[in-house]
Amino acid sequence: MPGQVTIWTYDWVPKAPRGYVRDLRLRWALEEAGIGYAVATVPFDDRGPDHLARQPFAQVPFLDDGDIRIFESGACLLHLAEKSEALMPREPQEKADTLQWFVAALNSVEMVTVPWWFIDMSGQAENLLAGWMQQRFERLEAVLETREWLAATCFTVADIMMSDVLRIPNDLGKLENYPALGAYVARSCSRPAFRKARRDQLAHFEAADAAKAQARN
Amino acid sequence: MPGQVTIWTYDWVPKAPRGYVRDLRLRWALEEAGIGYAVATVPFDDRGPDHLARQPFAQVPFLDDGDIRIFESGACLLHLAEKSEALMPREPQEKADTLQWFVAALNSVEMVTVPWWFIDMSGQAENLLAGWMQQRFERLEAVLETREWLAATCFTVADIMMSDVLRIPNDLGKLENYPALGAYVARSCSRPAFRKARRDQLAHFEAADAAKAQARN
Repeated sequence: MPGQVTIWTYDWVPKAPRGYVRDLRLRWALEEAGIGYAVATVPFDDRGPDHLARQPFAQVPFLDDGDIRIFESGACLLHLAEKSEALMPREPQEKADTLQWFVAALNSVEMVTVPWWFIDMSGQAENLLAGWMQQRFERLEAVLETREWLAATCFTVADIMMSDVLRIPNDLGKLENYPALGAYVARSCSRPAFRKARRDQLAHFEAADAAKAQARN
Repeated sequence: MPGQVTIWTYDWVPKAPRGYVRDLRLRWALEEAGIGYAVATVPFDDRGPDHLARQPFAQVPFLDDGDIRIFESGACLLHLAEKSEALMPREPQEKADTLQWFVAALNSVEMVTVPWWFIDMSGQAENLLAGWMQQRFERLEAVLETREWLAATCFTVADIMMSDVLRIPNDLGKLENYPALGAYVARSCSRPAFRKARRDQLAHFEAADAAKAQARN
């Protein structure tokens, strides 16, 4: 359908990642922008050539926007940001601010937090990334002590990305020494668009559980 | 000066990172686009409030484009890509392809290679990120076996980012089992724009050595 936006995610995931699967970033952005969308799925268990043709690292999400196909949650958000000023202001410096904080979330913060988390989950005694992660949090804490949102004077797609990146360390108790970061995550996650996005993702996977249970009977 | 583009980098760095400091990404993009630029510096040794005001993580590079100020090499490249079709095609699907591979370089590949490198340099016996990095290389190898450049049918800013990300594992011998990746890095790094960017960065830091030596005498 021309102009139809479709988010692609898994048909099912185990309990642990629910609420954190990155289709949530796309749902959140589309809710903020007031753009309607459908959700379609690829199998979680058997990631075949169809999936790899859309996402070469066998991840989700990816997006259809009419005829346009795009993968990487970060790229999908940049694409959506061009469709809506609710996601990225058009004034040149405010747009530059949005881009810089958006990339900082991906490449200065998440580049440390996700590998830190990976090592943390492995149970290795010494996590060499812990000090580096704390440095990043300290710098960001100083910034967020002085402002409500990262870029411009309003909520932007940079806040969607940074808040979603910080949610995992926050939920693991790693932001306890960074009150401005904790308050920022809470502020972002209290937005109706986030709450709907998270609720819808949880419902999507719960419906998959129910369908699986029925198929077994 | 209106419209003047200025890359900010360090006044000096030790020998090891020379040729890899990320101002190279900006030099490379500007050379590809044929846009003139100046280079300005902040102290490497004493990173004060002026530096933090421009780059809150005390890193380089950052960029001036007329009155616009922007940090994060990834954000600077996206900003520059909007100024030149030599960096990002304007056809919507080709633009989407460029964005997705650009973000894949930052968030699917570099998110593993840089923390892997950090742990590797520490001398820790078991690098838990090694398997994850190999998976990323395997997937990317399959893609680059079938095409010259990542997005569209021409070189784009996505290739600047991905090639620069892959240069470090390549130079550490970690791409030996991935001939398509090795050939891709060689292809990118043989471009005149890359060669000039690297040469200019090396010359910049050599001039700083000379100035330091003179100051000592």
